[in-house]
Amino acid sequence: MSTLQLYIGNKNYSSWSMRPWVLMKQAGIGFEEVMVRFDSFEADSRFKAVVGAVNPTGKVPVLVDGPIVVWDTLAIAEYLAERFPDKQLWPADTAARAHARSICAEMHAGFGALRNHCGMNIEASLHDVGARLMREEPAVAADLARIGQMWEGLLQQHGGPMLFGDFGIADAYYAPVATRIRTYGLPVPAAVDAYIDRLYALPGVKAWVDEALAEHDFVPMDEPYRKSRD
Amino acid sequence: MSTLQLYIGNKNYSSWSMRPWVLMKQAGIGFEEVMVRFDSFEADSRFKAVVGAVNPTGKVPVLVDGPIVVWDTLAIAEYLAERFPDKQLWPADTAARAHARSICAEMHAGFGALRNHCGMNIEASLHDVGARLMREEPAVAADLARIGQMWEGLLQQHGGPMLFGDFGIADAYYAPVATRIRTYGLPVPAAVDAYIDRLYALPGVKAWVDEALAEHDFVPMDEPYRKSRD
Repeated sequence: MSTLQLYIGNKNYSSWSMRPWVLMKQAGIGFEEVMVRFDSFEADSRFKAVVGAVNPTGKVPVLVDGPIVVWDTLAIAEYLAERFPDKQLWPADTAARAHARSICAEMHAGFGALRNHCGMNIEASLHDVGARLMREEPAVAADLARIGQMWEGLLQQHGGPMLFGDFGIADAYYAPVATRIRTYGLPVPAAVDAYIDRLYALPGVKAWVDEALAEHDFVPMDEPYRKSRD
Repeated sequence: MSTLQLYIGNKNYSSWSMRPWVLMKQAGIGFEEVMVRFDSFEADSRFKAVVGAVNPTGKVPVLVDGPIVVWDTLAIAEYLAERFPDKQLWPADTAARAHARSICAEMHAGFGALRNHCGMNIEASLHDVGARLMREEPAVAADLARIGQMWEGLLQQHGGPMLFGDFGIADAYYAPVATRIRTYGLPVPAAVDAYIDRLYALPGVKAWVDEALAEHDFVPMDEPYRKSRD
């Protein structure tokens, strides 16, 4: 087997990169990380040159497996689930698997308000911004309410500790949302708060967060609320 | 086996509904259609009440298979691919399957400019609008260029007639884009134009288009460019 390569952006900011990285790390799937620092998304940026050489969309994450190139997080997740069936990345039960795929597809295209107003920024603490958004942006509050309802329901249905019992793609998919809830101090039910604590304690999530905190990049295009790292 | 039910919106406008409907129809998978006419997307609309009763996101399409509820088009496609393995909804080859999943995931979350400016409207002919958008909206032109490059490359690589040889999920996924190219008269390479003709000739696509043309609804929220049907 060839060595899997995963192209990612900055760990502090790239929520899409976080998903497959955490998934593989936590599931014990070996891979080589190819970090492509965000400079800009202009056509002539170094980022676009490096990523565009492997992926026609010029976006991270990209998974390279010998001659096979897979882009877009959901396709990467499905590819890994097929290639490593023993890892049970999706729930074994048909109904639970359909449910897990539904919420991942929902995340893949949805929660626009939360994503636009609360960009991932693991290192930052922006509770004042979060409090203001909860007051002034009903769409952010609605996204958060849907996530709280979804997670509470799944934890109750499957008994935890993760969304569908054991760790899987759905948890990796929502991990960047968990970091936003922490960064922006967004209010969630107690059961959701406890789930986020358990998620942060997973070695695969902890490794990503630690490496995000160790980065020293400040990328202005990803920082609508700060002028520098504090 | 229970009867599959597919909840959809208006055939003229609902591009997301078109995808699984065309997929099942063309692949010969039987299902019962549950049409929920668009009135509005407000929380108190009939649409939200009917769809919200089966799907927590309140959106179409939704697939109901006995006790199993699947929402969001990509999750529905994966569910059908697993439930009907003999239909080969994804390409059999691993690399081609990874590629097909990549472009479907790309469509699932991408092409925002094309989708926003060129809403699906099968019955309409809006070539003037299309010409203006090509002049004034570089992001629409960029989306179209990416689609042309993608389709040309796939048709060349796999030899047609469909994107990956035989009809599958990728063709269903991009069918609403093909209707936009026709509605707005968007310019595409000859090979892409011929592919769109072949797509329109598929019985599953033809059935959807014919039923869209037979609808008499005019839904103002989906009609930024017209005040009535001509």
